[in-house]
Amino acid sequence: MKNRLMVGIVFAALVGAPIALLAQDAPAGRPASSNVRGQEYPRILPDRRVIFRTRAPGAKTVAVRARGNDSGMGSDPYQMTAIGEGVWEVTIGPVRSGFHYYELIVDGHAVNDPASHTFFGWARPTSGLDVPDDTLDFYVEKDVPHGDVRIRTYLSTVTGQFRRAYVYTPPGYDRDATTRYPVLYLQHGAGENETAWTWQGRANVILDNLIAEGRARPMIVVMDHGYAVRAGASPAPAGQRAGGAGQPDAFQDVVLRDLIPTIDANYRTLTDRRHRAIAGLSMGAGQAVRIGFGNPDVFASVGAFSGGGAGGRGGGAFDRQTAYNGVMADVAAFNRNFDLFWSGYGDLETGYKSGRTLHATLEAAGIRSVWFETLGSHEWQVWRKSLRDFAPRLFGGPEGT
Amino acid sequence: MKNRLMVGIVFAALVGAPIALLAQDAPAGRPASSNVRGQEYPRILPDRRVIFRTRAPGAKTVAVRARGNDSGMGSDPYQMTAIGEGVWEVTIGPVRSGFHYYELIVDGHAVNDPASHTFFGWARPTSGLDVPDDTLDFYVEKDVPHGDVRIRTYLSTVTGQFRRAYVYTPPGYDRDATTRYPVLYLQHGAGENETAWTWQGRANVILDNLIAEGRARPMIVVMDHGYAVRAGASPAPAGQRAGGAGQPDAFQDVVLRDLIPTIDANYRTLTDRRHRAIAGLSMGAGQAVRIGFGNPDVFASVGAFSGGGAGGRGGGAFDRQTAYNGVMADVAAFNRNFDLFWSGYGDLETGYKSGRTLHATLEAAGIRSVWFETLGSHEWQVWRKSLRDFAPRLFGGPEGT
Repeated sequence: MKNRLMVGIVFAALVGAPIALLAQDAPAGRPASSNVRGQEYPRILPDRRVIFRTRAPGAKTVAVRARGNDSGMGSDPYQMTAIGEGVWEVTIGPVRSGFHYYELIVDGHAVNDPASHTFFGWARPTSGLDVPDDTLDFYVEKDVPHGDVRIRTYLSTVTGQFRRAYVYTPPGYDRDATTRYPVLYLQHGAGENETAWTWQGRANVILDNLIAEGRARPMIVVMDHGYAVRAGASPAPAGQRAGGAGQPDAFQDVVLRDLIPTIDANYRTLTDRRHRAIAGLSMGAGQAVRIGFGNPDVFASVGAFSGGGAGGRGGGAFDRQTAYNGVMADVAAFNRNFDLFWSGYGDLETGYKSGRTLHATLEAAGIRSVWFETLGSHEWQVWRKSLRDFAPRLFGGPEGT
Repeated sequence: MKNRLMVGIVFAALVGAPIALLAQDAPAGRPASSNVRGQEYPRILPDRRVIFRTRAPGAKTVAVRARGNDSGMGSDPYQMTAIGEGVWEVTIGPVRSGFHYYELIVDGHAVNDPASHTFFGWARPTSGLDVPDDTLDFYVEKDVPHGDVRIRTYLSTVTGQFRRAYVYTPPGYDRDATTRYPVLYLQHGAGENETAWTWQGRANVILDNLIAEGRARPMIVVMDHGYAVRAGASPAPAGQRAGGAGQPDAFQDVVLRDLIPTIDANYRTLTDRRHRAIAGLSMGAGQAVRIGFGNPDVFASVGAFSGGGAGGRGGGAFDRQTAYNGVMADVAAFNRNFDLFWSGYGDLETGYKSGRTLHATLEAAGIRSVWFETLGSHEWQVWRKSLRDFAPRLFGGPEGT
């Protein structure tokens, strides 16, 4: 007990009271869901303005800034104001709903906000702000049956190292030991990792809700880390790795030789191609079309969220004979062999227009594909909406083709 | 493709190359396992000296400092030296093996090291340094069958909110749908959360290895978040919450009314008390003895890692009649009813001597209990070793009583 009390006292002294308790006002709004539990700031106001507040005793300047250009928060830092006792504050917005990476800038140094959970993005743990959309609750936890997200360790023969995948098993998976499930392989974007679709994307919550509504067929979702370096090889330079071009075949080999066999050996999967899909966002979209169409004996459904448009390395104009590993050269065969080719973009994304154009080209050629567009930028809110549209179309689900 | 390439370029420009690529030397040692993948620093030398290196362009001073007093790194910051191009470096140590929370101090501001994964400790995401012990590999991943760690969402009737527990299911759990398993409820310390036993403690790896060696009975391990606030109640002040004294019964109620029913409903558990144990470290040790001995109809085994010594609120001298909810008042009944009472400390901990004394007192009274001591301080290396000693004694395992 003595030890426990001591820890409590030391802890209280070093951590300090939550920021909210330092100020005496009764703040409006509510803490962001992306905050560390108990932290009152960042705080979302009903009109989607956001109050940031942080302690930085002795600082000369403190600011908050979105990471990237896609949040709608702009690229410039918002200067915070000292409000006493080392606490700084700024109110910004209204901020577009969705998940935004951000950072604090303290005396010129970019740092994480200690009040925010960290989310792996920009190749490091990064602060995140989830601004709710009061018209959308499809990615919010509800009192419905929940699947588990499983942290699965496996040894890769390709990299010679242990890797981790996050594996969603749907509600009921553990109750009926005879049912086998189709599998969606779902990849993150550049600078993220296997945790992103759970914490940023809320894929498990989206699937729980879709399944509860009867809108999606119960499925296993495998979320792996999209980077791989062959055993004995040097990592590619960071820029190449980020684009997925450093060792693109290494990740493909991991998927084919290590990941799929691990999943099929450890989970009750349906192992034929018609019950296996691959999708991803941005860099992961490129991987999905490359691996999916590159291995038509393995996958029958492909989803490209905000990327993967040209289907081959190096980009260039769409050539039906050669694009996507040539799987569209024979239109009738493509329509017969592939159950779903889905692509989508937010209207503010760079790739939006070319994505639309490509879809029109495919449609004119008689190639069956699904186009999805929604309001939004190159951010997670678009990818959450993409998954909500994509998943119900898979595996003969109620909205399937 | 265009979009993907753009992302890659933007990403490379903003994230920059890994620190290692900025310097031209071929560094000795190896990256810490706690680093973000691909980050070469912090770097562990063969003699357990550690090289820290970070980019902080424009900084006037940069230092590294352990969080807390238990790492063997001391409390004082280690000043880093500018080595050019905005990069700072310091070599310290040898550093004691084990897991140490740490921070960088840039121009006086304590921040996380972007090269380190964050670990939830000190009530926020915090950098961590895992220094290997070349004589110990019981918590290192091996090529043995791996269980899953499942992220389980459940709605708490006590708090009115969704909570998350991490649930380890042992290797083979999914293969044989008829076997039922005993359950260990395993709690973290103050300022940590449900993720700590996995990422800092490596409980899943420890269990995988023990089970592979035949040293522990396959079991489910449930790791919940040890803080709870009743629906409608205000959070207790941080100091009280840290010590677990703010709403101690709220967490107990969560365990009894929400968590155990959720686990028993969703996993193949053995639901009698002889197959249910509770343990924890530091603050969690206090919770384990309070909840375990407070509910002898629910638990038959209790583990107190570095805490929980006096068994009641407020501490004070041990009184066999009243301590631990009075379960030891009748010695014969205690020995008959409880399968295991385990307590342990590292020799450098504040509570070490009183823990030893208490064990001697129990032993003299004829109360069956297990005492464990090891080299170390109030840190995760002691708790990893504690779990390795504790788990094989549970549930009639090969080292059970």
